[in-house]
Amino acid sequence: MTDAPKDIEALIEVMARLPGLGPRSARRAVLHLIKKRGQLMRPLAEAMTRVADTARECLNCGNIGTADLCPICADDRRENGQICVVEDVADLWAMERGGAFQGRYHVLGGTLSALDDVGPEDLHIPKLIDRIRAERAAEVILALNATVDGQTTAHYIAGEIEGMGVSVTSLAQGVPIGGELDYLDDGTISAALKARKTL
Amino acid sequence: MTDAPKDIEALIEVMARLPGLGPRSARRAVLHLIKKRGQLMRPLAEAMTRVADTARECLNCGNIGTADLCPICADDRRENGQICVVEDVADLWAMERGGAFQGRYHVLGGTLSALDDVGPEDLHIPKLIDRIRAERAAEVILALNATVDGQTTAHYIAGEIEGMGVSVTSLAQGVPIGGELDYLDDGTISAALKARKTL
Repeated sequence: MTDAPKDIEALIEVMARLPGLGPRSARRAVLHLIKKRGQLMRPLAEAMTRVADTARECLNCGNIGTADLCPICADDRRENGQICVVEDVADLWAMERGGAFQGRYHVLGGTLSALDDVGPEDLHIPKLIDRIRAERAAEVILALNATVDGQTTAHYIAGEIEGMGVSVTSLAQGVPIGGELDYLDDGTISAALKARKTL
Repeated sequence: MTDAPKDIEALIEVMARLPGLGPRSARRAVLHLIKKRGQLMRPLAEAMTRVADTARECLNCGNIGTADLCPICADDRRENGQICVVEDVADLWAMERGGAFQGRYHVLGGTLSALDDVGPEDLHIPKLIDRIRAERAAEVILALNATVDGQTTAHYIAGEIEGMGVSVTSLAQGVPIGGELDYLDDGTISAALKARKTL
């Protein structure tokens, strides 16, 4: 593919397997790394080794931390009876950046998908039901993506939880803060209109 | 920025400094790496350390290799009196993928730029002139990008070499192989028309 030495070829090949990078941008990234061997490449390799050594999934919620329990599950103040169900750790981080949620999370690790053969067990849904019982949760907030797969999964979970005496909610849909109507899709506009509020 | 453990935050920050990755895609890449710690993250860290240990610039042409001379400069069969001047190692690799050039290269490491304070010394142009003399080159091929900066640099080099008794050429400009006229910019089409050939 290139005429680079074998070690560099191998590095480009591994880099190209990262999401968001293809063979072309992997080559560019590797050349940049080689130019900045001292300031960038070594620190990156060391940071990577450190994370590979320490990172692990929280046994309770599936978040990524460095101990059996992630900082959120280890913090008693976050046990407020609310469990926020998210697809992925990236979504958990996004919720935490928002800073509005004070409860605990449950990371599904994906969405239900007949095509990709992803069933309820793969998504830790039985684990979620155990947690609702064990933590005596009062509310389960389904913060799943507003995609077809996300919403299908939300409906499945809502069905499974029904009758457990826990209230099930989902994130509001509408116009994003700072959003301009002209740039929004029709679905969002009609959802926002349907859910309109009196001022 | 995220609520991730400090080591992971640090890794995301370093990743985000790669070209083509921003904070958002760096987060996504790091999460993917953590999920595939064994198959992807460790091999990547090891490949990176290996390259950081071995990669170095060829003392003659600026290509990246693992010895004082890159494989091309170390290969006597490539000393055919042609020196191909490229901006960057990525361009050298692109030329090698083409497989049509049998001579040696000279990597400038950028283009002349008054704004960024890049002068002839920064681009190893004096080194190029030394090489033309020492290797008794017959032809210098300026394979610089068809951008304003690339072409300015090409003209400067052509001026410096003038009178050294070496022929100076540049890559042909025209319609790319497989290119459709309807998708080409006007500049390319008029360049291709001006340089038209009898069939």
